[in-house]
Amino acid sequence: MKKHKIITLGEILMRLSPIRHKRFGQTTEYETYYGGAELNVASSLGNYGMNVSMVSVLPEHDIAEDALMHMRKFGIDTSNVLRKEGRLGLYFVEAPSMQRGGKVIYDRADSAFTQTEVDAFDWDAIFEGATWFHWSGITPAVSESAALITAKALEVAEAKGLKVSMDYNYRAKLWQWGKSHEEVMPALMEKCHVMSGIHPDVDVLNEEVTDLDFALSGKEMMAKYPNCEVVVFSSRGVKSANHHTWAGALFDGKKVYRTKKYELSHIVDRVGGGDAFMAGVIYGLHAFEGDLQQCIDFATAASAFKHGIDGDFNAVRKEEVMQMISSSDFSKVDR
Amino acid sequence: MKKHKIITLGEILMRLSPIRHKRFGQTTEYETYYGGAELNVASSLGNYGMNVSMVSVLPEHDIAEDALMHMRKFGIDTSNVLRKEGRLGLYFVEAPSMQRGGKVIYDRADSAFTQTEVDAFDWDAIFEGATWFHWSGITPAVSESAALITAKALEVAEAKGLKVSMDYNYRAKLWQWGKSHEEVMPALMEKCHVMSGIHPDVDVLNEEVTDLDFALSGKEMMAKYPNCEVVVFSSRGVKSANHHTWAGALFDGKKVYRTKKYELSHIVDRVGGGDAFMAGVIYGLHAFEGDLQQCIDFATAASAFKHGIDGDFNAVRKEEVMQMISSSDFSKVDR
Amino acid sequence: MKKHKIITLGEILMRLSPIRHKRFGQTTEYETYYGGAELNVASSLGNYGMNVSMVSVLPEHDIAEDALMHMRKFGIDTSNVLRKEGRLGLYFVEAPSMQRGGKVIYDRADSAFTQTEVDAFDWDAIFEGATWFHWSGITPAVSESAALITAKALEVAEAKGLKVSMDYNYRAKLWQWGKSHEEVMPALMEKCHVMSGIHPDVDVLNEEVTDLDFALSGKEMMAKYPNCEVVVFSSRGVKSANHHTWAGALFDGKKVYRTKKYELSHIVDRVGGGDAFMAGVIYGLHAFEGDLQQCIDFATAASAFKHGIDGDFNAVRKEEVMQMISSSDFSKVDR
Amino acid sequence: MKKHKIITLGEILMRLSPIRHKRFGQTTEYETYYGGAELNVASSLGNYGMNVSMVSVLPEHDIAEDALMHMRKFGIDTSNVLRKEGRLGLYFVEAPSMQRGGKVIYDRADSAFTQTEVDAFDWDAIFEGATWFHWSGITPAVSESAALITAKALEVAEAKGLKVSMDYNYRAKLWQWGKSHEEVMPALMEKCHVMSGIHPDVDVLNEEVTDLDFALSGKEMMAKYPNCEVVVFSSRGVKSANHHTWAGALFDGKKVYRTKKYELSHIVDRVGGGDAFMAGVIYGLHAFEGDLQQCIDFATAASAFKHGIDGDFNAVRKEEVMQMISSSDFSKVDR
Amino acid sequence: MKKHKIITLGEILMRLSPIRHKRFGQTTEYETYYGGAELNVASSLGNYGMNVSMVSVLPEHDIAEDALMHMRKFGIDTSNVLRKEGRLGLYFVEAPSMQRGGKVIYDRADSAFTQTEVDAFDWDAIFEGATWFHWSGITPAVSESAALITAKALEVAEAKGLKVSMDYNYRAKLWQWGKSHEEVMPALMEKCHVMSGIHPDVDVLNEEVTDLDFALSGKEMMAKYPNCEVVVFSSRGVKSANHHTWAGALFDGKKVYRTKKYELSHIVDRVGGGDAFMAGVIYGLHAFEGDLQQCIDFATAASAFKHGIDGDFNAVRKEEVMQMISSSDFSKVDR
Amino acid sequence: MKKHKIITLGEILMRLSPIRHKRFGQTTEYETYYGGAELNVASSLGNYGMNVSMVSVLPEHDIAEDALMHMRKFGIDTSNVLRKEGRLGLYFVEAPSMQRGGKVIYDRADSAFTQTEVDAFDWDAIFEGATWFHWSGITPAVSESAALITAKALEVAEAKGLKVSMDYNYRAKLWQWGKSHEEVMPALMEKCHVMSGIHPDVDVLNEEVTDLDFALSGKEMMAKYPNCEVVVFSSRGVKSANHHTWAGALFDGKKVYRTKKYELSHIVDRVGGGDAFMAGVIYGLHAFEGDLQQCIDFATAASAFKHGIDGDFNAVRKEEVMQMISSSDFSKVDR
Repeated sequence: MKKHKIITLGEILMRLSPIRHKRFGQTTEYETYYGGAELNVASSLGNYGMNVSMVSVLPEHDIAEDALMHMRKFGIDTSNVLRKEGRLGLYFVEAPSMQRGGKVIYDRADSAFTQTEVDAFDWDAIFEGATWFHWSGITPAVSESAALITAKALEVAEAKGLKVSMDYNYRAKLWQWGKSHEEVMPALMEKCHVMSGIHPDVDVLNEEVTDLDFALSGKEMMAKYPNCEVVVFSSRGVKSANHHTWAGALFDGKKVYRTKKYELSHIVDRVGGGDAFMAGVIYGLHAFEGDLQQCIDFATAASAFKHGIDGDFNAVRKEEVMQMISSSDFSKVDR
Repeated sequence: MKKHKIITLGEILMRLSPIRHKRFGQTTEYETYYGGAELNVASSLGNYGMNVSMVSVLPEHDIAEDALMHMRKFGIDTSNVLRKEGRLGLYFVEAPSMQRGGKVIYDRADSAFTQTEVDAFDWDAIFEGATWFHWSGITPAVSESAALITAKALEVAEAKGLKVSMDYNYRAKLWQWGKSHEEVMPALMEKCHVMSGIHPDVDVLNEEVTDLDFALSGKEMMAKYPNCEVVVFSSRGVKSANHHTWAGALFDGKKVYRTKKYELSHIVDRVGGGDAFMAGVIYGLHAFEGDLQQCIDFATAASAFKHGIDGDFNAVRKEEVMQMISSSDFSKVDR
Repeated sequence: MKKHKIITLGEILMRLSPIRHKRFGQTTEYETYYGGAELNVASSLGNYGMNVSMVSVLPEHDIAEDALMHMRKFGIDTSNVLRKEGRLGLYFVEAPSMQRGGKVIYDRADSAFTQTEVDAFDWDAIFEGATWFHWSGITPAVSESAALITAKALEVAEAKGLKVSMDYNYRAKLWQWGKSHEEVMPALMEKCHVMSGIHPDVDVLNEEVTDLDFALSGKEMMAKYPNCEVVVFSSRGVKSANHHTWAGALFDGKKVYRTKKYELSHIVDRVGGGDAFMAGVIYGLHAFEGDLQQCIDFATAASAFKHGIDGDFNAVRKEEVMQMISSSDFSKVDR
Repeated sequence: MKKHKIITLGEILMRLSPIRHKRFGQTTEYETYYGGAELNVASSLGNYGMNVSMVSVLPEHDIAEDALMHMRKFGIDTSNVLRKEGRLGLYFVEAPSMQRGGKVIYDRADSAFTQTEVDAFDWDAIFEGATWFHWSGITPAVSESAALITAKALEVAEAKGLKVSMDYNYRAKLWQWGKSHEEVMPALMEKCHVMSGIHPDVDVLNEEVTDLDFALSGKEMMAKYPNCEVVVFSSRGVKSANHHTWAGALFDGKKVYRTKKYELSHIVDRVGGGDAFMAGVIYGLHAFEGDLQQCIDFATAASAFKHGIDGDFNAVRKEEVMQMISSSDFSKVDR
Repeated sequence: MKKHKIITLGEILMRLSPIRHKRFGQTTEYETYYGGAELNVASSLGNYGMNVSMVSVLPEHDIAEDALMHMRKFGIDTSNVLRKEGRLGLYFVEAPSMQRGGKVIYDRADSAFTQTEVDAFDWDAIFEGATWFHWSGITPAVSESAALITAKALEVAEAKGLKVSMDYNYRAKLWQWGKSHEEVMPALMEKCHVMSGIHPDVDVLNEEVTDLDFALSGKEMMAKYPNCEVVVFSSRGVKSANHHTWAGALFDGKKVYRTKKYELSHIVDRVGGGDAFMAGVIYGLHAFEGDLQQCIDFATAASAFKHGIDGDFNAVRKEEVMQMISSSDFSKVDR
Repeated sequence: MKKHKIITLGEILMRLSPIRHKRFGQTTEYETYYGGAELNVASSLGNYGMNVSMVSVLPEHDIAEDALMHMRKFGIDTSNVLRKEGRLGLYFVEAPSMQRGGKVIYDRADSAFTQTEVDAFDWDAIFEGATWFHWSGITPAVSESAALITAKALEVAEAKGLKVSMDYNYRAKLWQWGKSHEEVMPALMEKCHVMSGIHPDVDVLNEEVTDLDFALSGKEMMAKYPNCEVVVFSSRGVKSANHHTWAGALFDGKKVYRTKKYELSHIVDRVGGGDAFMAGVIYGLHAFEGDLQQCIDFATAASAFKHGIDGDFNAVRKEEVMQMISSSDFSKVDR
């Protein structure tokens, strides 16, 4: 893999889920994980052995120390994580079961991250030597200052010639600070080269999504955001809470690259699936440089894997992903 | 919802299940729940916000205190629970898995409830201001005195003009005190207005149950028990221990109301499914007064929900049930 | 016990503690409890069988529903708990061990409770039929509106002739909204009849606290707050994190009532000890009306008990407390 | 060790204790153990490598199968355990903590064991080849038939010339079937050779128990029960629920053998301590034949050990007991 | 069942699996089981009530004591287990999930068993009174001495006229000591009468395996190993990690006996499935002597059962297996 | 703190301890930690924010990956950890309780680390830029090649002018490869500057250890090993398994520096106490350069802290240690 240094910007959250898949009203024990869209991407990249640093803000207490240790576990550089008074953002996740969907209770308002001053980060220093910047639509959603920080980061990234990837990650509940995502996002997206695309309006369970569908959607994005070079799509079909289908596509302006469709039955935890996909795209664009087919195959297999793993983080090694792509008989015990 | 006060009569049991779905011979840890057919109904009603009081008997020890606290959690009035020497009825439940069915070891003989004297309850006082009485075929099964208590309660309920609902709940293992259910039940059922019906003898997995099937069965019951106004049916089809189908029907003497058929895959715990159904019927008859379709839809959706929840109790809010009825895409994470 | 109805005002918090007494940096599992100074008092009162209602505010999500169920468990009336948008206050507790003290990370800022409008509660209606009002110094500490709400409640309580008890509960970390406790508390305390007192400045491990010490401290309070009729004191001596001494005293303006000194070794959880004491005082003033010695004996024994129990809540029955007071040989297995 | 075959008679119980030392009202998880005074003795004997068979009765369900597997674990012969319809006796144990004692809720009434017909066992066959019979005062307490079975067993044991040991184990709560222990026990004790003695009426915490005290108590027993050859005593002093003293004594009609006094601090579980002591006596009388000092040292050390172990059963090897007797520095890590 | 005494030879391993199906990199808690191909067979046989003794070697520490207790639980005679210095073989198992296969990390090299001297066992004494000997291809794989011990055992078994069964159990990772399985196994297999066969090279998911396929494969084995009387086959089809098909076949030289095909969905743990099958064959050949159809039905149902049970051991009673064979509606709760 | 880079050499082990302090024969669940004397030192140093790299060898499987992640958590550089075929060393720890000591079962023979070739490490490269080397007597104990590797490392360290610290850590069970520690250690110790000393032969519970005692012992070491500049001593007095005393001393050839004596009651886990002490010494010599009193105070307080924490690793921050040194009232809840 060629020399690189990836910077991500985003909030670090603690997730709490009732132990053994109980409901909120049934549990007195919670399992915790650290998550957040951009941390999930960073964790995957670090876990694949990439050089990655996360820009974020954490409070000054012992649980925040634990979050930092968690990040170091995966080899994420934590020297760009500021510490300041305030709270750690949380979210509570209740697992789905059969006929009922999962539930998320966000408790991230007024976190130390959202309260950070706009000029808290020295982006020139942070981007020194960096080659890639990744962000997602969650950061500009959480507060005005976070939106302004994102804008500032993108400005410097452009000036320094970094490649920029972004995941749209629209969460209606989060846009509360005054402006809407339609007002804020376009200016930010203009500076990006790799984007998650708007999925063609097709019922993936019952209809075939054609290459043309993806190409048209991709073209539209590229028309709107001329810097955009690559648009990626994940196609989820929901048969039940425990059974989805999952496939990926990538459009580079010229050609649509498709993957096989995975049948994801007995799903363990879908949270973080999209982040695993985006991390796979970034990894793939670095590791298989010219080979866009391999890139989207990797991203899709990696995120399929994620659905079988508890927690936000895609606890899977790149060798395992490669093996899943090539293997048809994945279910043998290796002994 | 119009003014109401519901009285249930029944035994309060402690259920013990091996932790993490182990077999009896594999565990040294049990999870406990409080259950029992009528308590399950009362818990659902209280949880839906209804005014409900349970008539029962508990021993005088600390675990019985815990059972009372459990009841109060759901808003069940416990002032009609007598305390007397004796034991708390128990039952042990081993979860099914794949090819093996679930196992229940009853340990409820000689409980304080079954030993209660026939005149222990002052039914006139208990029914003061009450509008509805619910009982099930389990209570007259467990002891002669319990059967006589049920008879006494029904007599006073009739005198006071209460509506009466009942769930047949035939358990062969329980009828040990001398008389058979055929000898005992008919006289009790004569005083009831809402009943669980005898399911048409049709293989629900492979054959269609027609409206006529339900109507004939309902008619037969109404002929036998002239007070009966509503007969409800739940149709379970068993594909495997983990996969059932589930549907409901209601007959009011004139028309058969049917629900959609739920595919219940990845079942977590089927115990209490019938109780959740009956609680849904009672709730529905109160909440959607004239609308019998909505009533049976609610009962069926609520009990479908139950199959995805650990323990006897249907830990689901009425808003969630309503959402399941109306929604087709139930598996989205709400965030 | 004579007829009474007790109203408490305060915030409901969720407490999270690492399972099995791990440190924050060692755990991925937390045990949860509901707590808060006034809820702890209310839970004890409800658990002792008293008629108690809590005035509070909770968010609209499912975990708040669980908190309500928890309150109902102990027989606390929840009809005065408002629901509004916002977050549930949390706090994280790490248990002490040997040479290290316990740690608390508060995460209660900006909770729904602290954001409640000053006129959210109709105190005339709430106090209708009530005989007693209990509050603590934590409520006016958490926000200006909470302080104003407290003031309003006290004004109406006075007008309606309720007895008022209060626990000073000074927490330096909480007074952040602009005014200091010295500015705010005196005006509130003027309306109170039963108070926690300022402990004489004596090293309780090595010196004897005399009756005179307590009497002087009590007199000073009564001079400052002429409505004050009873001042109570708890004397804690800290030998190590696992071993404290514990005693109580009560001054009624005429006489000092003292208790025996408990040796609390092998302490399980000291959090909530003071709340258990104050609940014991309120219970005692009702249950043993004229007998102030029995009152302070009960309060002190109850709170001693609390130190041997996990969580904020004093999970002990009044019969057990009575037994502890009378018994000298408490360690027999009762079989 | 000389050739021997030991027979015990008694009920097999399942014990349920709240996990992690919670109170009954705080737990939804119980840890289970199999116990009962005579089973505890048998388990220790089997665990020490002795040839032991237990005469008992179990129901026919899967949990009873698990109980049998538990017995086989320790090498107890289970061929004398009858199976018949009925229930398994249970008991619930809440651990003590600091100022509060432990609690036991018995739920053993009407068990299969207590309902066994008097002639269910063929004692001639059971005692064929046996050399020793052990029983305790719990068995004749639980039902009339159990008392008659004990009497029958003792009659045949005497006829066949077996040595008989017994533990008085008086439990007031258990004698409910009509006769008192004073009416029943003497006739049974007449046939015994080794007995637990009535402890001298001395405050062991504050006074010295003299050899003469033990000798007088032992003499009195031997006078009453002329077959008695050995009387053993355990001296418990209770400083707090977590801290006891523990010592043993043995009287053979001629001399009193005493042990050192153990300081048992940080007690984990005292239940089964007496059974561990009696098992140690039986083992010692076999293993150190002539050496009565070593016998009582072993029994006392073994039962001291028990206090540091969860559950009824004394999970300790004889080599560990020997090591404790000889060692003064027991707290080294062996590595 | 006719008089028999079965001897097995093999290593006893401790298996460690991350609790709650976590990945290796996600867990700090492991659940342990004792396993190993031949122990799994012995446990099943003991559990079915057969007379079985295991020849093995264990270290001298406390965990090895625990392994012995585990064996005694199922009635396995442990008097032929030698104790010597060395380590206990281990293996770590990560459960499969959806698209990823299970993982096994062997840690059994240099165990006490593999280091045992060739003449450590007195086979004449061990086989005294024995009627059957079972071994598997794992034992000669683990070390040269283990291979020589197997050869010696087979020699004496033949001389004494025992029936011999063997399971091929080829594990590529284990054959490390110098010779290949092709060099070693044939001479050992020559002395066997019941063997696991080489499955016909047919895609069982998509093609029908004919009786002829099995007969040809069986014939070939019998030709190569003239002592062979019975060849058994298990047919596994892998749809996904959670969903297999499973069927059995038996060839006695004259006829092929087939079973129904089980759909094994929601698989809990497939490890030990083959051992459960072989134990079923041995049990069946004893219990249903002439009836080979019942024999293979039992073996196949028993091993189907195993897939729904955590751990290596097939925790199922023979009555449950019989019930599964006869029943079509296995999913009813028995109450 | 001045610029530094610390290198440690040692084996990485996985520790397994029965969950909830059960005995080996009582548990089916183990908690795992990564440990080993030198890793414990490195983890503390990394946790205190120092620049530390560990030289070691790990197998190629997923659990070894997890060990690496664990190391990265604390900021330990893992680029000097070789990967090669073989096993991960393990050890099983049973906690002490009351009268019984802890138990360790080593299972580290034949690990990948012990099998490493002598020239596997390029010490010139490893020590490039390094300032300090730490090793312990465990490494030369485990195999001949490990002893030779240690010797080689020391040779290069001396040539490059690094400061060298060492902990004697004599474990009788480990020296099995042919030579004794008396034969091997002196030549290695000659190159060291900071050493753990041989404790004066004094009963620390009952006698005072004088400054002269420490000075004489230190002098003797310095005479034998002229490079030695600092000798450190920890004084443990064992009152019971749950209660020790703990103090430190440091001798620099001129003066003895002593600490206060800690009473360590309610000990949670003493394993790793000595490693926490040595890490404290190394940290102190860097952080408080000239101030040897502060150095030994820090080391002793840090290791006292360790006794209250589960697992090998001293999960404590340097700020907490500083606080413990200065504070006398450590047991307050910080809120």
